[in-house]
Amino acid sequence: MKFNIALLAGDGIGPEVIDQAVKVSDAVAQKFGHEITWKPALTGAAAIDAVGEPYPDSTHEVCKNADAVLFGAIGHPKYDNDPSAPVRPEQGLLKMRKALGLFANVRPTFTFPSLLDKSPLKRERIEGTDLVFLRELTGGIYFGEKGRKDNGDTAYDNCVYTRAEVQRLAKKGFELAMTRSKKLCCVDKANVLETSRLWRETVQAMEKDYPEVEVSYEFVDAVAMRLVQWPNSYDVLITENLFGDILTDEASVISGSMGLMPSASMGAEVSLFEPIHGSYPQATGLNIANPMATVLSAAMMFENFGLMEEGKAMRDAVNKALEAGVVTEDLANGGKAYGTKEVGDWLAANI
Amino acid sequence: MKFNIALLAGDGIGPEVIDQAVKVSDAVAQKFGHEITWKPALTGAAAIDAVGEPYPDSTHEVCKNADAVLFGAIGHPKYDNDPSAPVRPEQGLLKMRKALGLFANVRPTFTFPSLLDKSPLKRERIEGTDLVFLRELTGGIYFGEKGRKDNGDTAYDNCVYTRAEVQRLAKKGFELAMTRSKKLCCVDKANVLETSRLWRETVQAMEKDYPEVEVSYEFVDAVAMRLVQWPNSYDVLITENLFGDILTDEASVISGSMGLMPSASMGAEVSLFEPIHGSYPQATGLNIANPMATVLSAAMMFENFGLMEEGKAMRDAVNKALEAGVVTEDLANGGKAYGTKEVGDWLAANI
Ligand SMILES: CC(C)[C@H](C(=O)O)[C@@H](O)C(=O)O
Ligand SMILES: CC(C)[C@H](C(=O)O)[C@@H](O)C(=O)O
Repeated sequence: MKFNIALLAGDGIGPEVIDQAVKVSDAVAQKFGHEITWKPALTGAAAIDAVGEPYPDSTHEVCKNADAVLFGAIGHPKYDNDPSAPVRPEQGLLKMRKALGLFANVRPTFTFPSLLDKSPLKRERIEGTDLVFLRELTGGIYFGEKGRKDNGDTAYDNCVYTRAEVQRLAKKGFELAMTRSKKLCCVDKANVLETSRLWRETVQAMEKDYPEVEVSYEFVDAVAMRLVQWPNSYDVLITENLFGDILTDEASVISGSMGLMPSASMGAEVSLFEPIHGSYPQATGLNIANPMATVLSAAMMFENFGLMEEGKAMRDAVNKALEAGVVTEDLANGGKAYGTKEVGDWLAANI
Repeated sequence: MKFNIALLAGDGIGPEVIDQAVKVSDAVAQKFGHEITWKPALTGAAAIDAVGEPYPDSTHEVCKNADAVLFGAIGHPKYDNDPSAPVRPEQGLLKMRKALGLFANVRPTFTFPSLLDKSPLKRERIEGTDLVFLRELTGGIYFGEKGRKDNGDTAYDNCVYTRAEVQRLAKKGFELAMTRSKKLCCVDKANVLETSRLWRETVQAMEKDYPEVEVSYEFVDAVAMRLVQWPNSYDVLITENLFGDILTDEASVISGSMGLMPSASMGAEVSLFEPIHGSYPQATGLNIANPMATVLSAAMMFENFGLMEEGKAMRDAVNKALEAGVVTEDLANGGKAYGTKEVGDWLAANI
C-alpha cells in the first residue's frame, strides 16, 4: 500500500521522538512492502515562531490531504503563564481538532509487567489494568459560546451537545467494546447536567443495537474515585470532552507507564496519532526522551489502516526492547540508559 | 454558649451516624459548659417519602434559624437509575446549598498513620498528605441555565461565574492558607474556558493583599494527575464547582481514610457540616457504619464557632479510639469490630 502521512513534529521533544517513529515505521513499511511518503508541516509554538499561527492553513492543507497525521507534542514554556495571551499553541490544537473533525480521542491505559513498580498504586490495584477511554473531542464546553458580560465581571462558557454528536462517539464505543470484553461504561453527570442526560438517554437508546454489550452508567465523580481504587474494573469508557480531559489524564498516571501511552484522534476523513506525554521542554535536544509512546502511536496508525500485523510488529519490538533493557533513562532504574536515537535504531533493527 | 443546631439525618446510615455525633457533641457541651438544642428536620429520600420534596420549606426554616447544620447523608437506591426522575434527593441538596448560600465547600484529605495501608497508593506516595480543597458550591455549570432545543435533540448547560463569586471563595482560600503553610493552588482550565480565565485573573489580583501566600495556578487535568502521583505536594486548593466535585472525590480515596473524612459547607449566615461518605444503603440499620467522619464533622462545627479546644477534644477522642482499636468493621482489619453505637459511646465517654 501507499500512504501519505502528515508529520507534525511540534515543539520540545516532539521532533526527536517523531524521528524515531518515522524510522521504525519505515522499517515496517519496507518489511511489509508499503510505501510511506512523509509530509512535514508546522504546528504549535514552532509554527507561531515561523508564521505567527499555531495551526496555519498550509498545515491544514497537508493534514486534510493525508491518509493520517502523526503528531509529536506541542507547548512551550514561554506561553505557560499567560493563558489569555492572544496566540497560544493550544489554540492550534483546538483549531486542528475542529477543522479535521477529530471527534473521538482514543486513550488506552494499559500496563507493562516490567513497569508495574513505577505505578504510584500498589501492585495488586494496578495489575491487569487494560482500559480505553473514548473522549468526545470536538464538542461540549470547549467549543460552545464563551465570553464576558457586565464590563468583564461575568464570564460564561456554554456546554452544548447534539444527539448526533453523542451517537457518533457512542457508536465507536460500542464497536470497540465488541472487539474487547463487551463492557461499556458511559461516564456522565446526569444527576446535574442536561447535556449528561442527553448523553445517557442517547446511549440507552443504542443499547438494543448491541445486545451483547453490557452497558453501565457512572457519574464522573464516582469514576474519578474508582479509577484510583480499582482501575482494572474498567474496560471501555465513553465520555464528553471536559470529563475526558480530566479522567484520561488521571488514568494515564495510574499505570506507571505514562511515558509509553499512545493515543489516536479519529475523524470521519482523517485520523491523528500522538503520544500522550507533552513537549517536555527541559529535555529538548538532549537525546533522552522516550520515543516508545510515539512508536506505539504509529502502531495504532497502522492498525487503523487495517494493517494488524504491521502494528503488532511494532508493539513486539517495543516489548522486546523493554525486556532487553534497551530503554531511555526514565525507565532505566539506575541501569544503563540508551539515547532516544539509539532506542529508535534498536526498534527499527528489530522489526 | 448556647447553640441551636439543625439536625438533618437524611437517608441510609445517616440517622445512625448522626446519633453518635449528637452523643459526642453533647458530651463536649457538658464538659465545656455549653448548651446545644438539636432541631431535627427532614431531608433527602426520607423527606420525599414524608412530604413529597427532598428539601421542604419547613426544613429550610429550621436551617435558616439555626447556628449551624449537622448533616448525615442523602440518597436512596430507588432513585439511582433514573437521573431524570421528577423528584430526586440530589435536587434537595442543590436547593439547600443555594437557599442557604453555602458557597464554600471545605474538604480536607489527611492521613491517619494507622490507616496508611488502606490507601490504594504506595505508602511513600501518601505519607504526610494533608490538603484541603475549597470547592465553590453555589455557582458554575450546576446552577446556570440548562435545557433543550431542536425538539430535544440539542442539550445545553451554561457555566457562569461573576468576579464577586470568585473573590468570596478565593478570600476563604487565602485566609485558610494563612493559617496553614501559606501555599495556595488555584485549579482551573484557563487555557480553554473563559470562566477559568476570570477565576485566574481575579485570584491574581488578590495576591497583593496576601503577600505571604505563595500562589500557584494549575490546570484541572494536571491536578487530576498530581493528586495521584504526589498528593502531599498540595496544601490549600481552590476551585470551581464541577472541578471540585471531581477532584475532591478523587482526593478522598487516596488517603485510605475516606470513611473518616469530614467536610463543611460555609455560608455567609449559616454553615453545614457533614461526613463525605454517602448514605451507604446496604448498611442501613445494621449498626456497622463508621460514625467517626460525622464526629469529626461536628468537631469542625465547634471549631467554626471558634471553640478550638472543644474540637480538639473530639479529634483526640477519635485518635485514641483508632489507637485503642475501638473501630467499626471497615477499620477492624480482621480484628474485633465494634458497633456504630458502641464506638459512639466510647468516644463520648472519652471526651
Ligand atoms: C492543551 C489542552 C487544550 C488540551 C485539552 O484540554 O484538550 C490537553 O489538555 C489535551 O487533553 O489534549
Ligand atoms: C449528589 C450530587 C448532586 C453532588 C454534587 O455533584 O455536588 C455530590 O456529588 C457532591 O459532591 O456533594
